[in-house]
Amino acid sequence: MSHDLDTTIALLERTPAALDALLRGLPEAWTHHNEGDGTFTVVDVVGHLIYADKVDWMPRARMILEHGESRAFEPFDRWGHVDECRGKTMPQVLDEFASVRAQSLAALRALDLQPAQLELRGRHPSLGSVTLSELLATWAAHDLTHLHQISRILAHQYRAAVGPWSAYLGVLQCAGHSAPPK
Amino acid sequence: MSHDLDTTIALLERTPAALDALLRGLPEAWTHHNEGDGTFTVVDVVGHLIYADKVDWMPRARMILEHGESRAFEPFDRWGHVDECRGKTMPQVLDEFASVRAQSLAALRALDLQPAQLELRGRHPSLGSVTLSELLATWAAHDLTHLHQISRILAHQYRAAVGPWSAYLGVLQCAGHSAPPK
Repeated sequence: MSHDLDTTIALLERTPAALDALLRGLPEAWTHHNEGDGTFTVVDVVGHLIYADKVDWMPRARMILEHGESRAFEPFDRWGHVDECRGKTMPQVLDEFASVRAQSLAALRALDLQPAQLELRGRHPSLGSVTLSELLATWAAHDLTHLHQISRILAHQYRAAVGPWSAYLGVLQCAGHSAPPK
Repeated sequence: MSHDLDTTIALLERTPAALDALLRGLPEAWTHHNEGDGTFTVVDVVGHLIYADKVDWMPRARMILEHGESRAFEPFDRWGHVDECRGKTMPQVLDEFASVRAQSLAALRALDLQPAQLELRGRHPSLGSVTLSELLATWAAHDLTHLHQISRILAHQYRAAVGPWSAYLGVLQCAGHSAPPK
């Protein structure tokens, strides 16, 4: 489907509650372990979503509206959330994500973007010319990438426990699809 | 980590609310499209989870307790949900999943399984000898496989909309990990 702003917002506004329902109160055996050296725990993933809302999505949208392609976006630090997360519990990062996301969406709605504005272009430091529409669609797909990652991190903790069924569980075949910095 | 029944139940009891928070009211542009011929829509996935709770998990647990390895589990029909889902809306399947899962977990708790019982063995029609512990761990990991699939189906609908960012989004690199019938 082509990009539709209301459809994007419908997803973006549901992610904090979905993660809350899945993760709040879940034993730390699930949420505080990663997939090995240099990988995220589930707490890290929620911290990464908070950090991206703070420094990436709306700041980049404003950069497109104010500077077009004349100024490249700031590169995104995939490990920028580490300071944000240090010592925080799952309930704390879930509360913070809900708050930050609500602020982001209030700011997005306040822009009252019109179709012509969605076609405005900015400059990504690696990808080059991109549209505001593509940026906002990516924000939603980025939530989904991390929901995909969270389900994989959780399942990884039961890799041994499922015994021979591991061959049948798709999530245990997922190689992680590491991506360069956004 | 090794399998722990309370940890498994903690995940199993959260899945319906997590899917509800993510999917209820989400535009059909997200939820009623699949990933191509022979693949599931998100409504299908919720239907599959309902069907698996009805015919697979607790029936197999009871089969282990009653018959051990003397009788193989019934093979599971990956398309068995089709009749369950026909004509149903997303709110209907979400309501039904919440109800069926609550019944499943009430039945599981009523068994008051002790550690020695978790080591009892049954016979899978393809995998051979499996323990009750492995079956219950797989139930939780199966929820996670389908959360992983749901995030991928949703993201697939924005494959074009994200433009050049598609290269950076892990969920768009996921090949689906199709598995044989469970």
